[in-house]
Amino acid sequence: MSYNLLKGKKGIIFGALDENSIAWKVAERAYEEKASFVLTNTPISLRIGKIYELSHKTKSILIPADATSIQDLNILFEKTLDHFGGKIDFLLHSIAMSINIRKGLTYPSLNYEFLRKGWEISAVSFHKIMQTAWNKKAMNKWGSIVAITYIASQRIFPHYGDMSDYKSYLESITRNFGYHWGIKEKVRVNTVSQSPSITRAAKAIKGFDQLLTLSDKISPLGNASAQDCANYIITLFSDLTRKVTMQNLYHDGGFSHTGISETMIS
Amino acid sequence: MSYNLLKGKKGIIFGALDENSIAWKVAERAYEEKASFVLTNTPISLRIGKIYELSHKTKSILIPADATSIQDLNILFEKTLDHFGGKIDFLLHSIAMSINIRKGLTYPSLNYEFLRKGWEISAVSFHKIMQTAWNKKAMNKWGSIVAITYIASQRIFPHYGDMSDYKSYLESITRNFGYHWGIKEKVRVNTVSQSPSITRAAKAIKGFDQLLTLSDKISPLGNASAQDCANYIITLFSDLTRKVTMQNLYHDGGFSHTGISETMIS
Amino acid sequence: MSYNLLKGKKGIIFGALDENSIAWKVAERAYEEKASFVLTNTPISLRIGKIYELSHKTKSILIPADATSIQDLNILFEKTLDHFGGKIDFLLHSIAMSINIRKGLTYPSLNYEFLRKGWEISAVSFHKIMQTAWNKKAMNKWGSIVAITYIASQRIFPHYGDMSDYKSYLESITRNFGYHWGIKEKVRVNTVSQSPSITRAAKAIKGFDQLLTLSDKISPLGNASAQDCANYIITLFSDLTRKVTMQNLYHDGGFSHTGISETMIS
Amino acid sequence: MSYNLLKGKKGIIFGALDENSIAWKVAERAYEEKASFVLTNTPISLRIGKIYELSHKTKSILIPADATSIQDLNILFEKTLDHFGGKIDFLLHSIAMSINIRKGLTYPSLNYEFLRKGWEISAVSFHKIMQTAWNKKAMNKWGSIVAITYIASQRIFPHYGDMSDYKSYLESITRNFGYHWGIKEKVRVNTVSQSPSITRAAKAIKGFDQLLTLSDKISPLGNASAQDCANYIITLFSDLTRKVTMQNLYHDGGFSHTGISETMIS
Repeated sequence: MSYNLLKGKKGIIFGALDENSIAWKVAERAYEEKASFVLTNTPISLRIGKIYELSHKTKSILIPADATSIQDLNILFEKTLDHFGGKIDFLLHSIAMSINIRKGLTYPSLNYEFLRKGWEISAVSFHKIMQTAWNKKAMNKWGSIVAITYIASQRIFPHYGDMSDYKSYLESITRNFGYHWGIKEKVRVNTVSQSPSITRAAKAIKGFDQLLTLSDKISPLGNASAQDCANYIITLFSDLTRKVTMQNLYHDGGFSHTGISETMIS
Repeated sequence: MSYNLLKGKKGIIFGALDENSIAWKVAERAYEEKASFVLTNTPISLRIGKIYELSHKTKSILIPADATSIQDLNILFEKTLDHFGGKIDFLLHSIAMSINIRKGLTYPSLNYEFLRKGWEISAVSFHKIMQTAWNKKAMNKWGSIVAITYIASQRIFPHYGDMSDYKSYLESITRNFGYHWGIKEKVRVNTVSQSPSITRAAKAIKGFDQLLTLSDKISPLGNASAQDCANYIITLFSDLTRKVTMQNLYHDGGFSHTGISETMIS
Repeated sequence: MSYNLLKGKKGIIFGALDENSIAWKVAERAYEEKASFVLTNTPISLRIGKIYELSHKTKSILIPADATSIQDLNILFEKTLDHFGGKIDFLLHSIAMSINIRKGLTYPSLNYEFLRKGWEISAVSFHKIMQTAWNKKAMNKWGSIVAITYIASQRIFPHYGDMSDYKSYLESITRNFGYHWGIKEKVRVNTVSQSPSITRAAKAIKGFDQLLTLSDKISPLGNASAQDCANYIITLFSDLTRKVTMQNLYHDGGFSHTGISETMIS
Repeated sequence: MSYNLLKGKKGIIFGALDENSIAWKVAERAYEEKASFVLTNTPISLRIGKIYELSHKTKSILIPADATSIQDLNILFEKTLDHFGGKIDFLLHSIAMSINIRKGLTYPSLNYEFLRKGWEISAVSFHKIMQTAWNKKAMNKWGSIVAITYIASQRIFPHYGDMSDYKSYLESITRNFGYHWGIKEKVRVNTVSQSPSITRAAKAIKGFDQLLTLSDKISPLGNASAQDCANYIITLFSDLTRKVTMQNLYHDGGFSHTGISETMIS
């Protein structure tokens, strides 16, 4: 399937690790839709994942960067602008990690040093990426910036713990920076609130499999897959959605507006 | 601009009147994207508007129908299914009218007979259209149904009066029927909450010009035009947004998440 | 328990039927808190319910009125103002009925004549009550108006059917009329979105018992009872909440912000 | 005015500085309503503010503590439990500070070291307070925890900068910890989203006076004062609101549900 929706568009995709990653699927679909892009992730992710494969498949260059490091981000944007010989049109942020969850600490027992790191990786990184892009004047007019979030930012799913709070923060950054980008550069910023997906990060969450199953039962259209999500994000990067900004867009088969469904009471 | 996003898709578009109508712009864009569709509106709108022109331009047939009449809707859907020799993929509802506003009655002074009519035209019509489509098994799997709404459903804009309440009702129908469509037919239903647009209906609203200007100043990307809205709705009719349902999607240049903007305090 | 929170306050309570009614509990608690009030319900409810008992217990007069009839409401407000020799301070709307649900019609199969009646009883009645109060200049400054709603207005509970849509409409009336009351008379208007309660109306809903149980399990504090709700509404009628208006206030033990709770996945 | 609403209740109030502070007004009102409480703030605030005066007036003890220090919080809770000879019933968090705003850094130019400090002071402190209370088993059943927030967490007010993001995080902590408190201890946790108030922190915000005026004009009931807020919080600490939890409660004269008001277009 290809509509040439992103023909001539350039971007950076953060967070692809393996073929289960949403960022991976977005890269594949963006390539099919004729976009050019740079892939990036932390040096460690480059080692444990299969991103070289993706880079090869999508004819993209790969620039390692730790998205919590302004220094790394400066280099990434400089190389990217240099590589394309000009500004870019889209950015995807798909980065999240909770050390507290990995260590099995419950929400009332959070470790605050882990908390700070998790917040910097999962939320502040989005601000840093946009600050760097802002300072480098890296975005074309009517560009589009997207980050991935989850409904736990708004309603409680007990095992998401501190990740819920990072996602709330991420959604707030989206509105806040979206305001400034809109006024100054006509660039839009949105989050996609995606159904639970079986990614590496998700597997660390206790009871994730049951949550996935229950979420699928509750959602009238079933869970959205990473592939579905990639399709949706393509529309957000395209020129057809230029006036959508500062939004948290639920892409979840209707989960967010279902209360107690028939599947739960029968 | 054409991406063939709606190639092979068939639908019905309710509510085109003249070239300022959102439905008119959607019809033009859907045609460019290779959709086939039936245009419909009330017999009186057919007389006062220019819909024949649109029908000619988009090679569509035109079937008059009053969307508050189940009898008319039955005929419309029968003729449509017959015309296409099969089911359809999309429906657009762009119908709204407040007699109270036209008559200059303020919200505390509503006339209840006008209210009932306004509610039936602006909100119940959407249920009737979907009930008819449901009974006729008119929708293909993964079809998409969209209605137009305005943020006055959630926050008060004093001169929108009873129209705000109709829009709240319309958004509730969207969630409610969206649940059933999703489970039974894999069809999605959403509203697009659009910036104020200068349409015939809007002109009846007191202070509309000032509201339009102020809304444009507050929205970081400026107001979305009817043309922008048509582009956005194309993505909602396409196969790229299959898992978005029961949502109220703000297409408003960021107005909905802006509080007091800099333009208001300087 | 009594704090004299409503000492000197006068009001009208719509919708008490029997001791399970929220309005009944509010009347009992308002009496304990030293309010004076008029009880009202339809002539038929007066016959089938036990409201005379409540009237006796709370030393209130009872004035029959059909809240969909402007004529009845005019008489009710005239008699009330006359009875108290002056304006009133609070109004409670606890009226809801869906003929479609009683008849077992599913949401896609609604009967539109039943729909119109249900909407007039469950939602428009609230506007009519406020319009009558407005025209009669019946409310004191800093008065408080409350209506009861349910979260089905925002998320879908399939068996609530058209009642969800009425509740959305009711919440929209609250915002809309609340704006005008606020500006003109310093009166506030809010809805309380209450946990499911075993009332006569609720018993008509298919699967209600399971919904009640599941809701109780999901809510971190358990379901709120009608008695809890009465306590809460007392605070909304008191002078301590004067600046809360146009809100939909969840009184539900935390249900509204719980996604998938531990009780559901174990 | 006193209703004895908090008779026999004990608590801790964080954040009173001078007579403009919301926490100050809450302390005065809680005292009138017969509560006993401990006042606390940072050592520096004790020096620059007038909290000794408040302590004297309300017959409260004063325990200095930096709410970002677990060590200080441990001592505070130990001393408090010792002082009262038992558990407490309420906690008020009214702590917020943005170094970025003080330094005049705009949102796109945030300094990340200032950001971390602001986040720890304004948001993480709330988690730390609750974690300490949780570990010390300090809360009685049906206790109530409240934090102060502002609508900038949901809609953008450009000069609130990073404070908006802290407030989003604070509201998320409220939901998250509220879930656990509810299930384990029947304790409720809510935020009050208050009109802008002229406090010391607010004065650092650029254009604050104009924002205050505009907010007052837009809100149908006018801005809520710190005194109004104190009254409202008394109801949240009382036994009349036991089933309200995990909510963000707008106490703002209707600002949150007003779009473009008549005062803005005339």
